[in-house]
Order: sequence, then C-alpha cells, then structure tokens
Amino acid sequence: MPRVRVAAAQINTVVGDLEGNARRIADAYDAAVAAECDLVVFPELTVTGYPPEDLLLRPAFVAQAAEEVAKLAARTGDCVAVIGFPEPGRELANAAAVCAHGRVYGTYRKQLLPNYAVFDEQRYFAPRTAPSELFVVGGVRVGVSICEDAWSPTGPLLEQAAGGAELLVNLNASPYYAHRLREREAMLATRAADAGTPIVYTNLVGGQDELVFDGASLVFGADGRLLARARQFDDDLLVVDLDVRTGPADRSDGRPARRGESLPEIDVSAGRVPPAPVVARVEPALPFCAEVYRALVVGTRDYVRKNGFTDVCIGLSGGIDSSLVAAIAADALGPEHVVGVLMPSRYSSDHSITDAEALARNLGIRTHTVPIEPAHAAFDSMLAPVFAGTEAGLAEENVQARIRGNVMMSISNKFGWMVLTTGNKSEMATGYATLYGDMAGGYAVIKDVPKTLVYDLCHDLNARAGRAVVPVAVLEKPPSAELRPGQLDQDSLPPYEVLDPIIEDYVENDLSVAEIVAKGADAALVARVARMIDRNEYKRRQAPPGVRVSTKAFGKDRRLPITNRWPG
Amino acid sequence: MPRVRVAAAQINTVVGDLEGNARRIADAYDAAVAAECDLVVFPELTVTGYPPEDLLLRPAFVAQAAEEVAKLAARTGDCVAVIGFPEPGRELANAAAVCAHGRVYGTYRKQLLPNYAVFDEQRYFAPRTAPSELFVVGGVRVGVSICEDAWSPTGPLLEQAAGGAELLVNLNASPYYAHRLREREAMLATRAADAGTPIVYTNLVGGQDELVFDGASLVFGADGRLLARARQFDDDLLVVDLDVRTGPADRSDGRPARRGESLPEIDVSAGRVPPAPVVARVEPALPFCAEVYRALVVGTRDYVRKNGFTDVCIGLSGGIDSSLVAAIAADALGPEHVVGVLMPSRYSSDHSITDAEALARNLGIRTHTVPIEPAHAAFDSMLAPVFAGTEAGLAEENVQARIRGNVMMSISNKFGWMVLTTGNKSEMATGYATLYGDMAGGYAVIKDVPKTLVYDLCHDLNARAGRAVVPVAVLEKPPSAELRPGQLDQDSLPPYEVLDPIIEDYVENDLSVAEIVAKGADAALVARVARMIDRNEYKRRQAPPGVRVSTKAFGKDRRLPITNRWPG
Repeated sequence: MPRVRVAAAQINTVVGDLEGNARRIADAYDAAVAAECDLVVFPELTVTGYPPEDLLLRPAFVAQAAEEVAKLAARTGDCVAVIGFPEPGRELANAAAVCAHGRVYGTYRKQLLPNYAVFDEQRYFAPRTAPSELFVVGGVRVGVSICEDAWSPTGPLLEQAAGGAELLVNLNASPYYAHRLREREAMLATRAADAGTPIVYTNLVGGQDELVFDGASLVFGADGRLLARARQFDDDLLVVDLDVRTGPADRSDGRPARRGESLPEIDVSAGRVPPAPVVARVEPALPFCAEVYRALVVGTRDYVRKNGFTDVCIGLSGGIDSSLVAAIAADALGPEHVVGVLMPSRYSSDHSITDAEALARNLGIRTHTVPIEPAHAAFDSMLAPVFAGTEAGLAEENVQARIRGNVMMSISNKFGWMVLTTGNKSEMATGYATLYGDMAGGYAVIKDVPKTLVYDLCHDLNARAGRAVVPVAVLEKPPSAELRPGQLDQDSLPPYEVLDPIIEDYVENDLSVAEIVAKGADAALVARVARMIDRNEYKRRQAPPGVRVSTKAFGKDRRLPITNRWPG
Repeated sequence: MPRVRVAAAQINTVVGDLEGNARRIADAYDAAVAAECDLVVFPELTVTGYPPEDLLLRPAFVAQAAEEVAKLAARTGDCVAVIGFPEPGRELANAAAVCAHGRVYGTYRKQLLPNYAVFDEQRYFAPRTAPSELFVVGGVRVGVSICEDAWSPTGPLLEQAAGGAELLVNLNASPYYAHRLREREAMLATRAADAGTPIVYTNLVGGQDELVFDGASLVFGADGRLLARARQFDDDLLVVDLDVRTGPADRSDGRPARRGESLPEIDVSAGRVPPAPVVARVEPALPFCAEVYRALVVGTRDYVRKNGFTDVCIGLSGGIDSSLVAAIAADALGPEHVVGVLMPSRYSSDHSITDAEALARNLGIRTHTVPIEPAHAAFDSMLAPVFAGTEAGLAEENVQARIRGNVMMSISNKFGWMVLTTGNKSEMATGYATLYGDMAGGYAVIKDVPKTLVYDLCHDLNARAGRAVVPVAVLEKPPSAELRPGQLDQDSLPPYEVLDPIIEDYVENDLSVAEIVAKGADAALVARVARMIDRNEYKRRQAPPGVRVSTKAFGKDRRLPITNRWPG
C-alpha cells in the first residue's frame, strides 16, 4: 500500500486579486513542501477568487489568470499542486491545473456546473464532455474534480473510481449556510465508501460580498470514515498521510489501463527518505449559534477589509439588532475600529440611550451622540406647506429614519468609516424598515438572520462571554422602532415566533400561501405576510449586501421580479 | 399552394398575473378569430409574463400557469393558438402549447436556453433533447420554436425545415436595445431564406422592471423578404396571408413523412369560405432617438402602472437630466400625473429655479417648491461637534443631496407618488451621484442613457415637438450639481464626449484598460475612469432599476462583484 501525504490548502482569496492570490497560493505551497507533502489541493478557482462573476467575461482577466497559473507551475517542484483557474479555450472552463516539476502536467475541467441558488456557472463556463483523465502521482492514480462534481452519486467521482482512481481530490468553493457542513460530510462519507477511495475535499475560506466560505476542509477514508477536518472559517493547511489501496487500473472491466491512453506520471519522491507519519487532525465543529455568529463575523470582517476599510460606524438604538451588529463588528474588527452613533429623537425613550451606552461600554467601543431634533423640526417646517391638511402617518415616521440615515452617511463620508446596517431578516422580509433610513449603509450584517435567531444569538453570546455583553434590559424589552409615541413592532407585525416560520416557508421553502395555511397557520395572516414580502421586493433590491447564513437569503439567491402580481 | 392566414398576437403581459394574462390572450385570440385567422402565435411564456424569474421555482405558480393554458385551450375553436407557458414535468420546460378545437394538440419545448446577458433560463428550464415534432395546420406542416432557437444558423429552425416544415412560427420575449430590431431582421431574413420557409416571429411588448419589449413582430417570406412588421412598443395583431410552398415531407432525405411518426393534424378550415385576402402591413421603424425615447416612455409607464402607481414626482434641478426625465414621465403618464419638486439651496443658482419652472410650464406639470435651507442649517449644527476641526468636503456636499432625497421620499410616502430618479449612465458609471440622495427613488428612468445621448434625446425631442420643450438655457448651460459655490461636473469628470466612449468600451464591450488605451485614449484617464467604475459598484447595487436601452445596462445584465481588486 503506497502512502501519499496530501494537504488541503484552505486559503482566503480575494476576488480579482490575481497577483495577491498567486502569492497566497505560493505561500501555502511552500508550507506544504515544508510539511513534506506529495500533493497539495487548493480551492476552486483559486487564482481568481470565487465567484469572479462577470470578470470572467473580460478576456484580459482570463488571460492574466492563466498567466498566473503558468508562473505558479514554474515554481513547483516534487510536490504536486492542484490549482483552480478559469481555463481559456474555444469555450471557458472551470478548471484545475495539476502542476509539478516546473510545469503543468494537465488540467481537469469541471463537468457539473451549478446554475441554481447563488450559482451562475453556466453563464460563464462550458462543461467537460470528454472522459476525465487521471494523474499518476508517486504511483497512485489520482482523480481530480471540482465542487458540484462530487454531489452527483453516479457522476465524475464514481466514474473516476471505476476508471481506476485510487485517490480522489475535490476543489471547492462551497458557501456557508447553517448545517451545510453536516450535509457535506454525509455526502462525502457516502461518496468515499461508494467509490472505495479516499477523498480529499478542500474548501475555500473567507467572505466575498454576500457569501462566506467556511473552510472545514475534509478528508474521508475509503471506508467512508472521517479522517480529518480543518478549522472552520480560518486559513488552514490540513495534512494527512493516506495509505492508498491499489487495484486494477480500470475497475469497470478489470483491464490494466485506460484504453489506448497513457496517463501523466508524476514522480514525487525520487530518492526521498519517507517522512515520519503525521497524525490527522479533526478540528471540532462549532455548535449552531456559535457557528452562525462566526459566519457573521468573518463575512463582516472580510467585506470591510477587502474593500479597503478599517473602521465602521453603527447607529445604536438601544435595541437588540444594533446591539448584535455592534458585537459582531467588535469581534470582526476590534472594538477600537467600531464607532456607535446614538441619534435620539423627541420620541426616544430614556432607556434607548442608557441601554446603548451600556452596550458600548461592554464592547469597549467609542460613541458619538447626535440628537436629531434640529433636523426633525426643520423638516416639519419645510414640509408643512406641502403636507397641509394631511394626517400624520408613515411619511412623518420615515422622515426621522432618513435623517438618521443622513447623519450616518455624513459621518461615513467624513471619516471613511463604513456604515453597518442593523435590519434583520424578519424586517427585510416584511419591509419593516425605512429605505434610505435605517437601511442606508455598506453592509447589512444580519439581513439573513430572523428576529427569533437574533435573540438566540445574543443569549448565546452572553453565555459564551459569561457576562451580559448585550444588556439584559435590551434582551427583555419589547422591540420598537420609536418613530412615534408608544410604538411597538407588534402593532404592525405578528409576533416574531409566528412570523418567522411563515417567512421561512414562503421564502426559503417556496411554499404557496395555501400550502402554509394547510400546515396550520392562519389564512388571513399568511396572505398578509406573503403580500408584505412580495410588495417589499423593491426595498430589498436597494438594500446593501449582507452575510448569507440560510439556505435562501435575500440577494442573488432569490431573484424575484419587482413587478409581480402573483399573490403567492 | 395552400394559403394560411396567420396572426402574430403582440400583447403586453404582466409577470405573475396569470388570470390577467389569460384574459389578454383570450381577447387577442377572439380578435384573431374575427380576422378569420387559421393560426395565431403569442409571445414566449405568454401566460406567466417574461421573465418570471424565481416565481418558476414555486410549484404552485407553475401548476396554476398550466391550468390557465388548459382553460384557454378549452375555449379554442378552428383557429389554432400557440401559447407560451412553463410546462411542468420531471424537469420544467420553456414550452409552447398548440391549442385548437378545445384541446392541446401538443407542445414544443425550447431547445436553446439563453443564460447570458439578462437571461437566466438554465436556472429554471431543461432543454428539449428529442427531435421537434411538426404540427399539420390546414394541411401545412408548421414548425414551432421559441426565441433563442431561431438564433442558431444550424439549429431548430433549419432542422424543422429539413424535416418538412413549410411554415415556421417563433414565440419571443426579445428585450429592446438600440438597433436590436435591425439585428433581428437581418437574422430572420437569413434564416427564412436558408430554410426556404416563411417565418412568423411574434414578440412581446411592454415593460418589465429593467426590460422593455419592443414588439415589432415580423413576418418574412420563404425568399427572405420582409412581408410584415407590427408596431413598435404597442399592442398589435399582425395578420398576414401566406401562400405556402409545399414540398416533400422530409427534405433531408426526400421521404414522405417522419420515420414512423404521424403528425398531429389540425383541420382549421372545414367547410369554410376562403376569406378575402388581407394586405400585409409593414409598420415604419422609428428613427434612433425617437426609438430610444419611446423605449424610455414605455418602460417608465409600465413600471409605474404595473406596480399600482398612477402618479410620480421628480426633483427638478433645472438641469438637463431631470428635464428629460420629466418630459418622459409626462409622455408616459400624462402631465397631470407628474409633479415636479424644486428644492433650492444656498448654493442654487437663480437659473436653476427659473429653468425648472420654464420646463414645468412647457410640460404642463404641477410643481412644489421646498427650499432646503432649514434642514441644511440644522445638519450643519447637529454635525458640528462631530466634524469639529475637519475641512468641508464631500460629506458637506452629500448631506444636501440626502436632504433632498428625504424631501422626495417624504412626499412620496405622503401622497403615494413614485419618485423617479434622474441620474444618467455616465453618472451611474462613475459614481457621480449621491447614494440615498439624488439616487433615492423607485425608478431610474435614464440610468442606461449616457450624458451625450441625454443631449441628443433632448434636441430630438424639441425638434419633434417643433418647440423648445426643454428650454434652450437648459441645453446650453454647463452641467453642475450645485452642491458648492461654482461647482461644475467638469471639475470632477472628464468632458462627457471623452468619458462616454471610455465607459462604452469598459462596460459594454468588456475591454481592458490596456485595450482602450491602445485605441488612442489617455492611459491615466482610462485607468482613472475604470477605477471609478469599479469602485462605485456598491452604489449601483443599491440603485433603483431603470430602462435598459444599451447592449449592457447596469443591473442584471452586468454582474460584477463589489469586492473586486481587478484593476481593469
């Protein structure tokens, strides 16, 4: 049984940063060489970052990416590097280059191109149609595949195994959502056992706009057992020694090699002394709330930093949403890079100030206080002639939120701090937020977190901290926008424990109103919620991006027309 | 030579309005029957409207659409109706139902599914893979196909012709961009001549979010000559009599019929007296500026009305952009449904008021004037403690634009008028606009119109009106945002005659900075413009939709990451 040492190089690339990504790849390669690896596997589209979207339509971008791969290949030695890149040609391919000894031995082109949910790969790539070639690395036949290829139970991986592969390596850019790791592990365990072949699964790590890649690269044995797991959400080099069971070259008919083909042979250990064995690491998987929280932290950190910002500002209302966002930001960037802005109005309660100040103290962040009464009074007087004879209502409420939005953006423009918005998924769904008001900002940290989960995350945060980081008063008071005297969320919305499951069924599960009612919900209420969700599509279309943590987030995951008369 | 009377039923559907669309189809069908047609061809996905986007992921929606087709089929008689709909099944198809005599004789499933530009059809549909069946209508073998199918020179249409089709009908939802009609006509002339078969091409008409469908349904003869053209941008029923040349059933091998198949035979003229011939209409095609203007009018009208609004408000600055938008809105909705809002500041010139008032008089629209000084002074005082010791700059400019945004939205919220924004493509590209300020609103009418074309459209508008609807002063003064004393656009941007071609090359043509420089542009300038375009992606992502009139509009047409370090 030959032994190969394989590394999953879980790195945090930046979309479009071809030179930077090449440096990150070279550094990880050097680390793999230092760890005496025979083979190191990088994430999908390593050189470009994922997803590069319409950058792939720019010929200069694709040419430069291929150039970077050639330069990386030129610096490889005995250790084989498998690097993801867009391969130019008559049609573009989502490809992996197998590099060693200063050259590219060959490439693999992805066969199954996802074009659902957040994925648009058929917009850019043509699928491989020819059979996949194997690579012989140190005498072991290796099948290379990319992400979606692994998800078909009869697809490329099983074909490669039948064709004689003794080791499967799979390059991924698999975005996070809650419980996704469990799904990946179940799939890979089955696939490895079915193929009778170990699988090395490298995932990308880090945030890119709406997406967070959670790393947690995996290695499964030929028997379907988990052998190794890399860290979640962090860079890692996961090294394993695999004792590979060798068999007939082509298991489909027992013949010694692929018909008429000779496979690229890569000698990786000429004259080398076998290294001392490594012990495979299985990093622990985070519990649910801690995992979601960490995804929010990483998504926020990378969006802010990768876009060239160092500091953020957040409007603190004393409510639970802005408290959670401030806590996430402080964890993501350091409290010294977070500024809370308190903007009390004539309708603000006393506790809105004291609670916000307590939170800021707990987090160790600075605050500014900008009372909005002068502008509020000015708008009242400016609009009085136009509004003469009308009843006060939504317009008078929203004007306050938009004054606050203006204050936040003025501070942002003045000091170069990114505004983080604080709306949760329940609000984004129902439109219970003011466009250009509290929705104004660069990143909407918790836009995919339903209100009920906001509470859970805060309780869990306090439990993990062993103290009330989010003040108890914030957790206990009833939610209010405080845009008119005595206003409560529950005046306009059903209780969140009722609302959130309806939103989940309507948005994430694509159930119809009738189907949700059939599950036991109130018919009039479901129809009203569905109408709110559909009618507020125009607002969501103008919302900043935020971290996706569910199976269907508002954003590129869910593409509904604004003009839409379907009643649900 | 049998004669068939065919109608292209060019109707304005509403996405999601299944019952309403069914009514529109039934009305057009009845009109085709009254015109004694043998066959009436509807646009692509007639029943759902186009594009239904992720409504197609809702099983209840798809089921209801199929139901509506069954009901429509039940009311058909001798006249054959070809109706577009999403066909449920193991995999969803973009299909057309061939209906007559109270039933569905069969369906055609689209083979070529566009997944580029604004199209995402591979997200929803599986392509037809089996050979396409023909339908025999009154003794004539008819090939049905859908949109993209026609664009392949060797694809479904040629296969149908080789398989014995004597008449080709093609259902479309082909969105407008400038010169698109010319491209369609050139393609169809070639296709008809190559196939040796007449082609009836029905296009959708009307606006849907970013897209405008321009109608202009077409009929080409077997010799490739244009026989008929329907109206651009309006509902129409285009009726032609076609004398169909009959030949061997299967031209590929001269055999009398498809191997082993009997085609659905639909008798359309049992015992009927042949009607008197109709003269085919060739509606004139609009000249360039008038055509673009009409697209803007229709896109605006349908976005406003289909979303349930009747009236709009527009901030009038006395500049050319807001003047053009107001003129478009008045044409789209009637001047009585358009309100101009003047919001002078301490930096406004006298002519900004007088020019805006002159424009409003010329258009016959109402105005409100809301000076923003009270709020401006209030923000100055509110922000003074936070801004102490800083130089006045961008923050102090943007605060004014955001006060205006708040005024517009307050008026919108109060009276239920949709705010139309006035930014042009040159501004959207370079970010020369204030997010939540002048970018705040429901629809961005001219966001795909470069500034140089804004001038052309205004000159053309005045020429067509025979008077200066847009005041001469507006056309002649240098553009200015008036956010500080003496400010001019050209302080921050290159001259628009220089800027616009760079934007076109970088955005629409996907050229690199190096390639644009190679065409003769200044290297530093091109790099600066590319950087401005890329860095302002975050603003565009929060912009309202607007009418697409170019080959690549900001919106679903162009999907670039916000986090993006590619330097162009």
